Amino acid sequence: MHYKLALLGFGNVGRHLARLLMRKQDELRQRYEITFSVVGIATGRHGAAIDPDGLDLEQALQAYESGHGLEPLSRLPVDDSLDFIHKCGADVLFENSPVNHATGEPAVTHAHTALELGMHVVTANKGTVVHAYRQLTNLAAARGLSFRFESTVMDGAPIFSLFRHNILAAQLKSIRGVLNSTSNLILGVMEQGGSFEEGVRRAQEMGVAETDPSADIDGWDAAIKVAALTTVLMGIPTKPQDVQREGIRAITPEMIAQARADGQRYKLVCSARRVGAAVETRVRPERVGIESPMYGVDGTTSIIQFETDVLGLLSVVETDPGPETTAYGLLADFVNIVT
Amino acid sequence: MHYKLALLGFGNVGRHLARLLMRKQDELRQRYEITFSVVGIATGRHGAAIDPDGLDLEQALQAYESGHGLEPLSRLPVDDSLDFIHKCGADVLFENSPVNHATGEPAVTHAHTALELGMHVVTANKGTVVHAYRQLTNLAAARGLSFRFESTVMDGAPIFSLFRHNILAAQLKSIRGVLNSTSNLILGVMEQGGSFEEGVRRAQEMGVAETDPSADIDGWDAAIKVAALTTVLMGIPTKPQDVQREGIRAITPEMIAQARADGQRYKLVCSARRVGAAVETRVRPERVGIESPMYGVDGTTSIIQFETDVLGLLSVVETDPGPETTAYGLLADFVNIVT
Repeated sequence: MHYKLALLGFGNVGRHLARLLMRKQDELRQRYEITFSVVGIATGRHGAAIDPDGLDLEQALQAYESGHGLEPLSRLPVDDSLDFIHKCGADVLFENSPVNHATGEPAVTHAHTALELGMHVVTANKGTVVHAYRQLTNLAAARGLSFRFESTVMDGAPIFSLFRHNILAAQLKSIRGVLNSTSNLILGVMEQGGSFEEGVRRAQEMGVAETDPSADIDGWDAAIKVAALTTVLMGIPTKPQDVQREGIRAITPEMIAQARADGQRYKLVCSARRVGAAVETRVRPERVGIESPMYGVDGTTSIIQFETDVLGLLSVVETDPGPETTAYGLLADFVNIVT
Repeated sequence: MHYKLALLGFGNVGRHLARLLMRKQDELRQRYEITFSVVGIATGRHGAAIDPDGLDLEQALQAYESGHGLEPLSRLPVDDSLDFIHKCGADVLFENSPVNHATGEPAVTHAHTALELGMHVVTANKGTVVHAYRQLTNLAAARGLSFRFESTVMDGAPIFSLFRHNILAAQLKSIRGVLNSTSNLILGVMEQGGSFEEGVRRAQEMGVAETDPSADIDGWDAAIKVAALTTVLMGIPTKPQDVQREGIRAITPEMIAQARADGQRYKLVCSARRVGAAVETRVRPERVGIESPMYGVDGTTSIIQFETDVLGLLSVVETDPGPETTAYGLLADFVNIVT
């Protein structure tokens, strides 16, 4: 089967996806009989290009990186992102516009429009899940399409798909995880005797933290992930502001030292626990001991633990994810949809 | 859809499966529109029962546990296990006869016969995978059926299904894991100052080790798991005797103490690593440091790590699996096949 793909959003994730698609082209054909062409790419500030016969990805990357922009490659004029979606004619839209934590827009509208036009939607944008999971999933189902978002939590590691395909007929009782790299890096630097500010700098140097790292440090990023997990895996719609949230600003070197002396480490722990028909969701610094798989989670490594009625406690650890892993989650969603 | 199930093997796993089927009956109907009847149960030494209208599982468990045997419940005479397979008329056979590491028999013949007769086969029996994976998988495919075996490694935790449904279009470069509970328990007891023999006794008291624990201690159980993983996930047929194997008999209290002093722990590590078109497989005690997710794996907890070309290092940890978890793997395979 041949699929026409469109990439809306051509930042770090979108460009890694383009490279991954090139690298996996032969493998997709040989293992899954999937062929594809990328009929459209829309960037934030470098224009957009549509070619019904397929764009040359190498050329598109060069046009982007040279700063010339994508317009010269386009066979159609493109006004804006909605115009792009209407004109691209794709079978699958990869929605990777920047996350808007407060409303999920414009990504929600992008996804909605693409589904209405008959495209599958794959996204790494947490905003769509937190703000419109039910709406987009129902719309997709009504059209015989799929809305997928594996890359929104723990990069490309299979989390959502685990409960779609593997852990079936199970009751999910609780979730715990360490899901924010910036906080984890800062706590690690403080364990080595560094200051909070040094930790922030390290995370920024590594390209993990934003210039303004508050969303990470104050637990918002973690709260959004908890909300997404709870909404999708427990079926209980949850907004980030519903999550009890305490960041790592109040953690002092003395507290870190005391924990170490007791054989423990501070981790910014995400959690969601069913209580009757409701759920208790929380982000807060906790001390964990060596008996916990969270104990060894360092740097940008992340972990998620699922407690169900049928398996003991199942943990998934993603060690040192590289820049390709988020892009890989998008690719895996695509392959999963069409096979 | 209604499915007729047959349970061949009614030991600990088979009986837990029966209880789990009863417990999940409503959930399967409500969430997946699956209904089922168990039309046959064959035990090792308590006879067999076939009832085309469905057996009462509670009654079957009582008949087994009271020692009266299952014959009184049967509407047909049953000569032996092959006769059972021919007469049971099931859609799905759960093959849980005892493992024969040397040949895989009689489980391989059971599975083969059931597939020939048009049944899906689900098994927790490692022998079938190590000795006949390709044969049984090809036969199943030719008949439009499935042969599944999630419970053969790490109980019910999703391992094989992860590469069937989640980690798609990926190259698996290496596998590492701690997959033998007896060895891990013994090493743990020795870390607490106990002797090797005390460790063996503890594992036996917990029902984890056999009366003769050599298969665990000498690394055979781990080697079989490595062979199964390599055969299925890397596509390279591997026998347990192909695996470089070193058990834990040579580990002394002094070695354990030295490792601890260095901040490390001994683990019986399973590994498989692609080298060109071949694979290097190994079971041996290794010292691991706190940076490894293996470090915190205690007691009956197990871990497996996958290195691919698309995700960093992905680890799955199953903490304190209960007796139901192997049975759950069988149930999940069944649901996966029919949904």
